[in-house]
Amino acid sequence: GDSWTVAGRIFNSRLIVGTGKYRDFAQNAAAVEASGAEIVTVAVRRVNVSDRNAPMLTDFIDPKKYTYLPNTAGCFTADDAIRTLRLAREAGGWNLVKLEVLGEAKTLYPDMIETVRATEVLAKDGFDVMVYCVDDPIGAKRLEDAGAVAIMPLGAPIGSGLGIQNQVTIRLIVEGAKVPVLVDAGVGTASDAAVAMELGCDGVLMNTAIAEAKDPVMMARAMKLAVESGRLAYRAGRMGKRRYADPSSPLGGLI
Amino acid sequence: GDSWTVAGRIFNSRLIVGTGKYRDFAQNAAAVEASGAEIVTVAVRRVNVSDRNAPMLTDFIDPKKYTYLPNTAGCFTADDAIRTLRLAREAGGWNLVKLEVLGEAKTLYPDMIETVRATEVLAKDGFDVMVYCVDDPIGAKRLEDAGAVAIMPLGAPIGSGLGIQNQVTIRLIVEGAKVPVLVDAGVGTASDAAVAMELGCDGVLMNTAIAEAKDPVMMARAMKLAVESGRLAYRAGRMGKRRYADPSSPLGGLI
Amino acid sequence: GDSWTVAGRIFNSRLIVGTGKYRDFAQNAAAVEASGAEIVTVAVRRVNVSDRNAPMLTDFIDPKKYTYLPNTAGCFTADDAIRTLRLAREAGGWNLVKLEVLGEAKTLYPDMIETVRATEVLAKDGFDVMVYCVDDPIGAKRLEDAGAVAIMPLGAPIGSGLGIQNQVTIRLIVEGAKVPVLVDAGVGTASDAAVAMELGCDGVLMNTAIAEAKDPVMMARAMKLAVESGRLAYRAGRMGKRRYADPSSPLGGLI
Amino acid sequence: GDSWTVAGRIFNSRLIVGTGKYRDFAQNAAAVEASGAEIVTVAVRRVNVSDRNAPMLTDFIDPKKYTYLPNTAGCFTADDAIRTLRLAREAGGWNLVKLEVLGEAKTLYPDMIETVRATEVLAKDGFDVMVYCVDDPIGAKRLEDAGAVAIMPLGAPIGSGLGIQNQVTIRLIVEGAKVPVLVDAGVGTASDAAVAMELGCDGVLMNTAIAEAKDPVMMARAMKLAVESGRLAYRAGRMGKRRYADPSSPLGGLI
Repeated sequence: GDSWTVAGRIFNSRLIVGTGKYRDFAQNAAAVEASGAEIVTVAVRRVNVSDRNAPMLTDFIDPKKYTYLPNTAGCFTADDAIRTLRLAREAGGWNLVKLEVLGEAKTLYPDMIETVRATEVLAKDGFDVMVYCVDDPIGAKRLEDAGAVAIMPLGAPIGSGLGIQNQVTIRLIVEGAKVPVLVDAGVGTASDAAVAMELGCDGVLMNTAIAEAKDPVMMARAMKLAVESGRLAYRAGRMGKRRYADPSSPLGGLI
Repeated sequence: GDSWTVAGRIFNSRLIVGTGKYRDFAQNAAAVEASGAEIVTVAVRRVNVSDRNAPMLTDFIDPKKYTYLPNTAGCFTADDAIRTLRLAREAGGWNLVKLEVLGEAKTLYPDMIETVRATEVLAKDGFDVMVYCVDDPIGAKRLEDAGAVAIMPLGAPIGSGLGIQNQVTIRLIVEGAKVPVLVDAGVGTASDAAVAMELGCDGVLMNTAIAEAKDPVMMARAMKLAVESGRLAYRAGRMGKRRYADPSSPLGGLI
Repeated sequence: GDSWTVAGRIFNSRLIVGTGKYRDFAQNAAAVEASGAEIVTVAVRRVNVSDRNAPMLTDFIDPKKYTYLPNTAGCFTADDAIRTLRLAREAGGWNLVKLEVLGEAKTLYPDMIETVRATEVLAKDGFDVMVYCVDDPIGAKRLEDAGAVAIMPLGAPIGSGLGIQNQVTIRLIVEGAKVPVLVDAGVGTASDAAVAMELGCDGVLMNTAIAEAKDPVMMARAMKLAVESGRLAYRAGRMGKRRYADPSSPLGGLI
Repeated sequence: GDSWTVAGRIFNSRLIVGTGKYRDFAQNAAAVEASGAEIVTVAVRRVNVSDRNAPMLTDFIDPKKYTYLPNTAGCFTADDAIRTLRLAREAGGWNLVKLEVLGEAKTLYPDMIETVRATEVLAKDGFDVMVYCVDDPIGAKRLEDAGAVAIMPLGAPIGSGLGIQNQVTIRLIVEGAKVPVLVDAGVGTASDAAVAMELGCDGVLMNTAIAEAKDPVMMARAMKLAVESGRLAYRAGRMGKRRYADPSSPLGGLI
């Protein structure tokens, strides 16, 4: 098989999906099923803990079948994110987590300095930290040095659906990393996910692209196949680009 | 299911593959199998007819299982292409054909005037003509008026692997056509095929992208999934693009 | 100097501008002045011939100072375009003309078959015909064979402002042409015009990008400089692209 | 006029040029002259201080006519960069400086954590610090908070000539900044410089694109015009993008 490993855990699916913006938990569960994902990420802050009679995500997406990946969406400082994940660990025993420390509410870009600091603290505290970050090759190394078990650069702003804006930086991060690299944020449609994988990423995380499609379950199936196809194309080794049909005419300065 | 129909024939696979540039017929057959294609295209001019002891493509790719689509690769005039297809029909009974009338050997771009002329003659002669053409919306209508049963615009020069250069023209052709539209030429990797399908095309034809991959059979499998994923994404209806995470901030002039 | 020649006439400016969509003739004239253009194109069909008291374009843009280039905007058949240009020649003595034969009103794409036919007739009739066309390298050669004195491929749909969609085709047309090549349609902002020139085109024609800018006169000045800068960059010979700073690391498959 | 101000100094040219990779000082000086630049940046580390008989840059580019902007190219830690700039200030009295703290020799990407730290120290020490950085909107704010007088995000790796890879991030930085923003690194040809200005940047810094052109002096002139044209286009307010010619058909999901 073509599995990948993060923090000692082996997964076959390279697609991680979210749990926000769906019509209801039933639709979310159907999309997760169609996506083939083995990991679902959940914003700790959005988990209902007060109303014991309200429906719960875990009633729809079985925590025994799927790996829950708590994330710190909505946290704007390292301290806030650290506190949130410690609570999550106490409550649910979750050790594999996704760290987000946001720099502002408008663009949801991460604050890299706070993110590095939080990664250090959490890693020392025994967490396996997958880290949302900007697509900065040196910043990615800093995170790895701080103990991140996976690097998760954004491809474009969260929720934008713009697709991967900078293939050069994603590729440089992949080339420099010793831990898995997953594109987190920016995917809008299937080909965007395939591009991420063709760049050599180990996986892709997405939420809005599935949840806000007209038919989320069908789009989830599309994303499953897109991630698989991009991964296979990367492994298969694509043809070179040429400007003309004639193999003896390599690409000139144009392309 | 999500089948498509050309000239009254129903197909489930939306990927058409070629039979050139492979190491040998065995590798070609393995790639066709992995691609899930139901149609394989064959250059009439390259078919071995002289040496009865040499291996034959039909020994490896069963004409009873796959629809053979004879093409006129290497023909530079309407008359040449018409003659070639008439010979093919006499020899093998093939009626569904792919017309290429090339304008020059360097870029292998089609000659649209000769292509329209050949389409008219062949359609009147009872052929079902799928037509390789430039990505010209008006030219595509001319071909449809001339009797083409499918429009096959290039996405980039044959054998270039550059991916779809002009999404605007492909989309305009799709919107204007009453017959199936398939991108023919230009696909280099999986995401390129997904993009073609996301634009609303009915299918994709490719040869070099598979045959010249380091592992053609694995790339054939990648392309199968890419075409399926792009088609599903098109049907599912992608999310809108936004510049910021905030849904109330639509894209401005930038994007 | 770095002049260019079409039909034996020498020009220093490589920017041709239009005369539609302006607030009034005065604004149009100010924009033409700021653009540095030596040629202005005028739709014969839109010229006021009935009301002798209404203001006239020639009162604002002096035909002795600027070369008027009559065009056939609004003509949908070869016959219509031929008739229109013959009337223009009888009325104003214009011999250097711009041919447009449109295929449909929605996209304003040219009909190449009618365009080739009209070019042949007009060339035999003594016109110097600059021809609006799709970005089809073989189609461009057909036009040249038919007697066109300049090839004017669209970069994107007329009035779209999308910028040059297909750099490969424009470059192939430039490489194959023995007459001047000018991008006609699709430019939206200054960098688009620079790109056209960097591809080796001899000039650019635009209307909407200037007329519909918030400040048309300032945009006209921007376009003047953009065309000059792109031309100089083409002549200066740009640096090669590299993936890394290190010159010994050439671009890999990524770019 | 359309001047810009950094640290209380007013400049009319928005193009800053470098002093590396030229054939000799004479060629460098000719290119600077042609570029219209008022600021030239010099790597403190590369300045010859040992051989008093060797030619000196200041013999060719007059420090009374041009503003010399010392930079810390080749420094890989905050301490190293701080020490370098203090030496430069003692030697030449330079107070307006360009800070680069590189993260690695291969890609020459900046180390943002060291860069923020150096900016703080230098700002407190009375320097006016223009700062090379990644195109990270939150990182840019951190630098501004640390006292940077200008933010200089890379458009692509130094010396790559790839053009601006991520228009979204550059635009977000421009929107969020209260100090001037200049694209530093990545420009390869004239249109790249125009794009930077069209995004609303206050200026562009480049070296390789001019120095490694076949004709550096002509390319310097091209860049002068490109920066001016992009700036004018930004101020003029470009037309909206449309998919069709018909103004009533706005762009759909495609573009």
